[in-house]
Amino acid sequence: MRGIAPRCDMADMNRQLVLCNRPKGLCAPGDLQLAEGPVPTIADGQALARVKYLSIDPTMRVWMAHDSYLPIVGIGEVMRAAGLAEVVESRHKDFKKGDKAVGLTGLQEYCVIDPADKRKIFRKVPPIPLISDTAFLGVLGITGITAYFGMMDIAKPQKGETLVVSAAAGATGSIAGQIGKIQGCRVVGIAGGAEKCKWLTEELGFDAAVDYKQPDWKEQLAAATPKGIDIDYENVGGEIMNEVVQRMNLHGRVVLCGLISGYTKGDPALESFARVLVKRLRVQGFIVMDYMDRYMEAAAQLGKWKMFGKLKSRETIVEGLEKAPEAINMLFTGGNIGKLIVKV
Amino acid sequence: MRGIAPRCDMADMNRQLVLCNRPKGLCAPGDLQLAEGPVPTIADGQALARVKYLSIDPTMRVWMAHDSYLPIVGIGEVMRAAGLAEVVESRHKDFKKGDKAVGLTGLQEYCVIDPADKRKIFRKVPPIPLISDTAFLGVLGITGITAYFGMMDIAKPQKGETLVVSAAAGATGSIAGQIGKIQGCRVVGIAGGAEKCKWLTEELGFDAAVDYKQPDWKEQLAAATPKGIDIDYENVGGEIMNEVVQRMNLHGRVVLCGLISGYTKGDPALESFARVLVKRLRVQGFIVMDYMDRYMEAAAQLGKWKMFGKLKSRETIVEGLEKAPEAINMLFTGGNIGKLIVKV
Repeated sequence: MRGIAPRCDMADMNRQLVLCNRPKGLCAPGDLQLAEGPVPTIADGQALARVKYLSIDPTMRVWMAHDSYLPIVGIGEVMRAAGLAEVVESRHKDFKKGDKAVGLTGLQEYCVIDPADKRKIFRKVPPIPLISDTAFLGVLGITGITAYFGMMDIAKPQKGETLVVSAAAGATGSIAGQIGKIQGCRVVGIAGGAEKCKWLTEELGFDAAVDYKQPDWKEQLAAATPKGIDIDYENVGGEIMNEVVQRMNLHGRVVLCGLISGYTKGDPALESFARVLVKRLRVQGFIVMDYMDRYMEAAAQLGKWKMFGKLKSRETIVEGLEKAPEAINMLFTGGNIGKLIVKV
Repeated sequence: MRGIAPRCDMADMNRQLVLCNRPKGLCAPGDLQLAEGPVPTIADGQALARVKYLSIDPTMRVWMAHDSYLPIVGIGEVMRAAGLAEVVESRHKDFKKGDKAVGLTGLQEYCVIDPADKRKIFRKVPPIPLISDTAFLGVLGITGITAYFGMMDIAKPQKGETLVVSAAAGATGSIAGQIGKIQGCRVVGIAGGAEKCKWLTEELGFDAAVDYKQPDWKEQLAAATPKGIDIDYENVGGEIMNEVVQRMNLHGRVVLCGLISGYTKGDPALESFARVLVKRLRVQGFIVMDYMDRYMEAAAQLGKWKMFGKLKSRETIVEGLEKAPEAINMLFTGGNIGKLIVKV
């Protein structure tokens, strides 16, 4: 038993992939380079683990490029990645040799599990019969959990609604769509290629799949969503998102989970949406006509505030019906202050 | 008393502004043309009213250009507009001669009030001391009601939060900002020009105003929002919205009320946001890290679904740490199905 003996008796080294250049587009040879470092030593409260499996996720490309919900990975640092690792040596009471854990292992062979470092989000994996280790990186791991909360907490699907999932054959999309089916939705997946589409409909039970690599994919989407779309589980952004949003019904919900179409290229049209995603903002479109039956509620409160001097207003009044076209233009040239009115 | 006598005894005609061309950019001469029609006759259940004031709103430019939350105005039709009108003749028990009402009068001198036609949303205006007629088109009218529900129902401001309002010196923005002050927010308005900015801070009590016509407006915005931005009451879109969203705090809210920067020009970057607005969608950015303390809730349910065969998953496994860079690229070239994993 090796126990807490010093690490220097371990012959092998720790192979790591280090970020050497920030990729332009796809990762080019040399952007991530193999390096060998010593197997790390551990302190009290830590465990050393051998990485068995690494989760490869689109968000890694974001981490290489700029600060997001996590800081950018520095040049010269081991590339950040989630993984599953097995404890080989421990100085932490909850992690014993042979225990498995998932967390941000990094792209390397050995990692230190330090539960006090919350940023690495390590969690012990329970041995469950029939569940493979890799499931804790997928369906029961970060991508499955993502699909679960995105659907159940944000989309809140109702029976009979139409759900569209983009990147539907991916790790998150494939689970999100199936959760939609469990909740009684009509589910349409968007994916690239016949094999993926076939998997969605024949294996996963999606009601339809749209192959975005076919020239008629927009027509396919329209045909698959005859009642419009109530929920967009969005993983892609760009042209695909535009088309989905165009077909959405009033008061629909967009779960902005990923914008993979923009990760390998700078797309200014995606900038605002990328910020909405990373900062977990809620953007709510709004037309006052939906509130007309509550008009008096607002008018009473506004009137009270106005009477007590808490609300001031100003009007710009233009005289003459024939001046209305000029008045409309004033709105766009900054010509008025406060409410713009034409006196007829 | 004229009562229900036929309309032909009325000497004057009904001057109207008719949409003759769809404007490109601002309204050009001839896009809206003056025409004279007969004063309309009314049927039982209707009233005839003389339009006194017309509300001039940015949304009119949208109505001229394409279908939105209301159908496009047809070429040859009287231009749609909200207004305040006084009943001159009535065959409806609730509308008496001299009563005033607001609704979609159109850009014309006479309109028919037909309460059965819900699309015209006519509402009688109560005579209230100290409240002018025009207030029912502004602070107590559609723009005030818009600001009220946008703030109280969608933004739900909390004491101490920072609210930024764009087009803050406009009819809706000026009320939205003051409601923010009443609710205890730090309120920053974005407007064009010193006069508007002065009005916001000196008359309306905004904490700061940012003049977007100054070259340093982004620095002004940063200085005015030292704790970031929690609520964006968005009336403008485009570059201004981009900058505001960039400064937003985690879990902030964007009330998408208007996108005036795009109304007179086709801006593809605004397309998706325009659809979000018009269809009253909710777009929610989402990062699963916020849910990590509820991991077990999701894992338990996902595990149950998986055990009962309701959830299928698939993995693409690539062998070898050194293959991780290629694996990352597979995500963007469509190379994997389901969860992508590297076996170390």
